[in-house]
Amino acid sequence: MATIADPRNTTGRLISAADVQGAAVYDKVGEKLGTIETVMIDKASGRIAYAVMSFGGFLGIGDRHHPLPWQTLRYDPDLGGYVVDLDRDRLEGAPAYDEATRTALEDEMFGRRVHDYYGVEPFWSAVI
Amino acid sequence: MATIADPRNTTGRLISAADVQGAAVYDKVGEKLGTIETVMIDKASGRIAYAVMSFGGFLGIGDRHHPLPWQTLRYDPDLGGYVVDLDRDRLEGAPAYDEATRTALEDEMFGRRVHDYYGVEPFWSAVI
Repeated sequence: MATIADPRNTTGRLISAADVQGAAVYDKVGEKLGTIETVMIDKASGRIAYAVMSFGGFLGIGDRHHPLPWQTLRYDPDLGGYVVDLDRDRLEGAPAYDEATRTALEDEMFGRRVHDYYGVEPFWSAVI
Repeated sequence: MATIADPRNTTGRLISAADVQGAAVYDKVGEKLGTIETVMIDKASGRIAYAVMSFGGFLGIGDRHHPLPWQTLRYDPDLGGYVVDLDRDRLEGAPAYDEATRTALEDEMFGRRVHDYYGVEPFWSAVI
């Protein structure tokens, strides 16, 4: 049964954060880039700040985590995951952090680099 | 070690959705009302539409789920959970759904009832 808690149901307005976590992320030619590890919420505004994409192991040492602004993600029902306008080469240069530099996520300069890289408005200034 | 992924770290701007899920919800006198079961995201805007609070069993038959607008939740580091300005009696009258009426979450009239009940702006009209 398709419910709103089912990410395959793409008709609904809402999606559960639990269903975003673990979803695959693909580039535009359908190559898998990684998996959404978690969704970071801006506490004050209740906005999604980032969907954090990682590769391979879950929070393993040395893993790189790529924060993706929510606006960069488009759900593709055929692939059953998210598509971003980004290939592996471009991803190599994208702002990322590892366990040792995890606090970068709270750093505004880092946040600006992320949003500049993807060419979208920062979550703290966006008005929709 | 306190990290931004640690809900006990209340100094950060961001919190992981995974850490909101499972957090306890208390009323103003510290009585536990329930547990945050999931966070529902408005896909188009990237806003948190609701934190859904439930009681007891996880998605069990007959369970009632209470969508709480994000603005109603305040994190209390001493309690280690969220506090809402709501007691059990008032909660009894709050808009809720069960498994059979789960699609109510997508219904705009239901959404208006929820936001009116808590006296906050709907997520689809809020500008921060």
